[in-house]
Amino acid sequence: MISFASDYLEGCLPEVLQRLIETNAEQSVGYGEDEYCRSAREAIRRHLDCEADIHFVVGGTMANAMVIRHVLLPHQGVIAPESGHIAVHETGAIEAGGHKVLTCPAANGKITAAQVEAVVQAHRSDFAREHTVQPAMVYVSQPTECGTLYTKEELGALHAVCEQHGLTFYIDGARLAYALASGSDLLLSDYPRVCHVLSLGGTKCGLLMGEAICFFRKTLAGDFRYVMKQSGGMLAKGRLLGLQFLALFENDLYVRAAGKAIGCADRLRRAFSAAGFDFAFSTGANQLFPVLPPAAAKQLKTQFDFEPWQTLPDGRVVWRFCTSWATTESQVAALEDALLTIVDT
Amino acid sequence: MISFASDYLEGCLPEVLQRLIETNAEQSVGYGEDEYCRSAREAIRRHLDCEADIHFVVGGTMANAMVIRHVLLPHQGVIAPESGHIAVHETGAIEAGGHKVLTCPAANGKITAAQVEAVVQAHRSDFAREHTVQPAMVYVSQPTECGTLYTKEELGALHAVCEQHGLTFYIDGARLAYALASGSDLLLSDYPRVCHVLSLGGTKCGLLMGEAICFFRKTLAGDFRYVMKQSGGMLAKGRLLGLQFLALFENDLYVRAAGKAIGCADRLRRAFSAAGFDFAFSTGANQLFPVLPPAAAKQLKTQFDFEPWQTLPDGRVVWRFCTSWATTESQVAALEDALLTIVDT
Amino acid sequence: MISFASDYLEGCLPEVLQRLIETNAEQSVGYGEDEYCRSAREAIRRHLDCEADIHFVVGGTMANAMVIRHVLLPHQGVIAPESGHIAVHETGAIEAGGHKVLTCPAANGKITAAQVEAVVQAHRSDFAREHTVQPAMVYVSQPTECGTLYTKEELGALHAVCEQHGLTFYIDGARLAYALASGSDLLLSDYPRVCHVLSLGGTKCGLLMGEAICFFRKTLAGDFRYVMKQSGGMLAKGRLLGLQFLALFENDLYVRAAGKAIGCADRLRRAFSAAGFDFAFSTGANQLFPVLPPAAAKQLKTQFDFEPWQTLPDGRVVWRFCTSWATTESQVAALEDALLTIVDT
Amino acid sequence: MISFASDYLEGCLPEVLQRLIETNAEQSVGYGEDEYCRSAREAIRRHLDCEADIHFVVGGTMANAMVIRHVLLPHQGVIAPESGHIAVHETGAIEAGGHKVLTCPAANGKITAAQVEAVVQAHRSDFAREHTVQPAMVYVSQPTECGTLYTKEELGALHAVCEQHGLTFYIDGARLAYALASGSDLLLSDYPRVCHVLSLGGTKCGLLMGEAICFFRKTLAGDFRYVMKQSGGMLAKGRLLGLQFLALFENDLYVRAAGKAIGCADRLRRAFSAAGFDFAFSTGANQLFPVLPPAAAKQLKTQFDFEPWQTLPDGRVVWRFCTSWATTESQVAALEDALLTIVDT
Repeated sequence: MISFASDYLEGCLPEVLQRLIETNAEQSVGYGEDEYCRSAREAIRRHLDCEADIHFVVGGTMANAMVIRHVLLPHQGVIAPESGHIAVHETGAIEAGGHKVLTCPAANGKITAAQVEAVVQAHRSDFAREHTVQPAMVYVSQPTECGTLYTKEELGALHAVCEQHGLTFYIDGARLAYALASGSDLLLSDYPRVCHVLSLGGTKCGLLMGEAICFFRKTLAGDFRYVMKQSGGMLAKGRLLGLQFLALFENDLYVRAAGKAIGCADRLRRAFSAAGFDFAFSTGANQLFPVLPPAAAKQLKTQFDFEPWQTLPDGRVVWRFCTSWATTESQVAALEDALLTIVDT
Repeated sequence: MISFASDYLEGCLPEVLQRLIETNAEQSVGYGEDEYCRSAREAIRRHLDCEADIHFVVGGTMANAMVIRHVLLPHQGVIAPESGHIAVHETGAIEAGGHKVLTCPAANGKITAAQVEAVVQAHRSDFAREHTVQPAMVYVSQPTECGTLYTKEELGALHAVCEQHGLTFYIDGARLAYALASGSDLLLSDYPRVCHVLSLGGTKCGLLMGEAICFFRKTLAGDFRYVMKQSGGMLAKGRLLGLQFLALFENDLYVRAAGKAIGCADRLRRAFSAAGFDFAFSTGANQLFPVLPPAAAKQLKTQFDFEPWQTLPDGRVVWRFCTSWATTESQVAALEDALLTIVDT
Repeated sequence: MISFASDYLEGCLPEVLQRLIETNAEQSVGYGEDEYCRSAREAIRRHLDCEADIHFVVGGTMANAMVIRHVLLPHQGVIAPESGHIAVHETGAIEAGGHKVLTCPAANGKITAAQVEAVVQAHRSDFAREHTVQPAMVYVSQPTECGTLYTKEELGALHAVCEQHGLTFYIDGARLAYALASGSDLLLSDYPRVCHVLSLGGTKCGLLMGEAICFFRKTLAGDFRYVMKQSGGMLAKGRLLGLQFLALFENDLYVRAAGKAIGCADRLRRAFSAAGFDFAFSTGANQLFPVLPPAAAKQLKTQFDFEPWQTLPDGRVVWRFCTSWATTESQVAALEDALLTIVDT
Repeated sequence: MISFASDYLEGCLPEVLQRLIETNAEQSVGYGEDEYCRSAREAIRRHLDCEADIHFVVGGTMANAMVIRHVLLPHQGVIAPESGHIAVHETGAIEAGGHKVLTCPAANGKITAAQVEAVVQAHRSDFAREHTVQPAMVYVSQPTECGTLYTKEELGALHAVCEQHGLTFYIDGARLAYALASGSDLLLSDYPRVCHVLSLGGTKCGLLMGEAICFFRKTLAGDFRYVMKQSGGMLAKGRLLGLQFLALFENDLYVRAAGKAIGCADRLRRAFSAAGFDFAFSTGANQLFPVLPPAAAKQLKTQFDFEPWQTLPDGRVVWRFCTSWATTESQVAALEDALLTIVDT
């Protein structure tokens, strides 16, 4: 059984594993203060072209919860798309930290600067203010949970409205490598100009685990290590994260590995289209959301693993197929062949 | 200037004030363990016809926050109408206690048993469960924030779906007296049969301050005094709350005082209609939501205080007018007169 | 039965009650934005001789929890005497808000600047820092829970060490009136010079309920109304608190009423001494802590209510007797008489 | 430079690394629901001789915070030694979850059943109860933070007092392997009989990272996966933890690897004693706490890394030396040689 169910099915990139093997017997200080973490931070800063404050944590839910808890005051909330990861799939981690997620309707998983402006204005009306949660942050994912991409202009507009109203703009880059490799009009070095905090995902982009949280304003980064320790997010053997991120960023591995996934996704996109299937969202990254009739889904399920994403108002079912840095030519070819068969039936 | 801006503009009913005056010099033990609190609990139990566990707290936001924090486990959330007080006007108090409010669209401020069932089923799907907040409670207000009333059948259906799925059903009765006096088909003694926890509001129904939280299941009430003290909701001079609730419930004052407000509201309802104005919600309780043209609103504002409630999609503005136990005949007459004038213009 | 069990046994001062009676039928806006609250704030500012930002809340536990939650960041803690109210008698309200109380041993209920310095230094050592809670606030009560008083010099030293290390110094004045009336070397107008935040207790000093929180630094006060609303501490009929504090502070009632209690306490202090009983703490305010043999305690219990405070290492029991603004000459005389009898036996 | 500064300086045991290498390219479902996690749970259950409910999480602070948050109600607290990890070195993680740590003085890092009984009784007195945090759990570490070991009798007594009063007894086994290998009178299979929840540490006992939380009562385990996800403690590539624990427990590697560390520690214990140095605590596990004069410490620091633990009242400094599964014969020999030199000087 070949699985396209997610992009965190395998271990890690061979280059990453090799680093862990080579350094296994070394002794180093803990909690992210070792040489490998230092070098990894330097490597990432070079790619960002920015003196960012960078911290490594184990996972994405934790990264989101820590950043939001660190930046917001108790009476403040975070604006997010209603399909945003923090709004839907983190078991209330943000609320457990004391903060309301102020959701906006999100066509294709994206929100706009105008929506943010509207939330801010509504809060400032006479009958809201201190009786309601104060919006103080905007959260989006790039690419979104629907596989769509924000353009440079869209992120710039969100950044501008945040700057105007004193909100912190946080981009969750759990799958950012796939955005960078997708023909997006933003380079990694553009991000410090369009947001205040960025997470660079490792788990879904070739590492065993790990996210790098990048603060682009010194004031936001202060004392973040306390928050990491308190949240249980400071890894004792912190070098394990440093080593892995160093392997990704000391050269172009981060985007290169994602590029392979995008190539595979493009082939599958063409194959689904050729087989006559529509997509629920028009995506350019590593996730595909074809609408499959029950018979087709059933037939593919005999050979492949993939997950239902949602049921449309008309009853049709949207499925998610992911490629990743680990997807092989033969896995793609097998699905292409299967789709040809479906066409024939 | 006469104000119809809310139902908590004045002090308290004369009968309540008299009690405070008479007992002012008495010594009594604190924290709600005095004789007046005991008698007040007994009086309320007689009206409820139920051996409820009853606790007195100072305010409504606190009451909601404490009940929800006490009943839910950290990973659980509460289902509520999107217009519910806990979802909108408590500055994130529920989230500050760690819990997500799972909102449902709410025509006229009300949610249905079918909506609750849908939230529960969605949570149980393979791709939700522990990645999402577990629904464990339903919150509604009677009357709702839009002044509408749930029928006995509607509350019964909500109760049934809660029982079926093990959810706790909590009714926020901040204005319950007005529902009871409005020709609702539920008596106070019906509530222990249709919900598990009920708050009986005093602040908006004739007391200086105070809500009585009534638990209809012993298991829910255990250790609630700890939660009250921890939340800062256990009044040192607890007898002040007991005395006031005793004055309301030792006879029929609770519903009787509200009845006067309903009479006033009915007169105003007729006067607005006669003046040709529509209502945004069809209400039977003490709140009216007329849609007023700018000129009419401006003219009324010269004599009366009242608040904007919302702007309709077509740009028209809905205003809120409240009557209360303290509304006088002459106040109502003044507004009736003013509405006649508007008609004439 | 005459009770000396606490200083919150009765209702309120006659002057305060009169105000509530006179204004009962008036209409006013809610949530502390009315004229009475405004006037009360002005009156308190005159007494403080300082442009303080002042907020009224219902109770003391709530006041402490809100101030601490508002001032601290998630990874910060508050230094307090081990006998401090927040450390012992608030059911973990501070921890429920997410913060550790860093307790210091406290002879007679008081901590010193040297102790604060030591906590700060310990935290800064290489093996503490982000692995431990960051001290960011100092909490003391004046008078303390043991009835003792800080001198101007002691508070000045605590203030200096706080200023030096960037800590916020908060004084819980739940019983401050009794300190002011006790021959303390601090006037109310001295407090803005020795601390950053002060609560002025009303509940134990002649009001039905209420504490006034005074911020002496604008930066600390920002957005506090959000915290009040979120914590359920913003009273709907806010004028009730304003009216009461206005009655206390528009003239000298606050200290004058407390003065009566101190006179009564002084008489009882002499009576206990004359009867041959020692005190566990040497106090000047309205609480007395005599060490009573079982027979004496038993005999007094037939006529009076009072509470055990602690058991000394040698097995003897310390009891607490409180006087208050409401204590009468005849109540004091009755206890004096009873103590004379005990001497005779 | 050879480091004895901690027991988490290196990567992982070769057998563990081998497993990660062999399985790197495999696809498996996430979040701990894969075959390796299932097998690892089975292997641990065989060692425990108990049908425990077992969950894998990344780190120890997270494990403690999640277990305590899951088991306690909002108004409850956890009793712990004042030197316990949760009380000192977790940056207030337990308080951030809303709970007070009720500390007891702890000679040699250990608390007794009598101390627990005293805390429970104090809470039940008339003037404590709902004004104070309700003790509902006992936390101890085995071995303790001071390297000492609880005997079977001591743990049995703690278990008995917990059972009697309905408290949950949780043992933090971050270094349990070293206790098991130290001639402790408890086997792993004894633990389900002496506590209700146990964490089995991997990070300090040969894994890259990971702790196994074992619930010995089904009622305690319910819905724990929600808490894990909400806390950010559910690893996406969960098999990484399963694989590592499987390598430790499919045979005797867990205790065998720790045995080597104990052998090294014993040699160093003799070497320090021979050099004339005392120990602050009498330990049998992998941590040594020699009291070193400044000159000796300085000389050793030229060759070795190790950390100060505390300063004794008489001014002498206690240092900590750790051995681990990774300590080599030559590292031990080097320190033995250095200690011989110090004797000669």
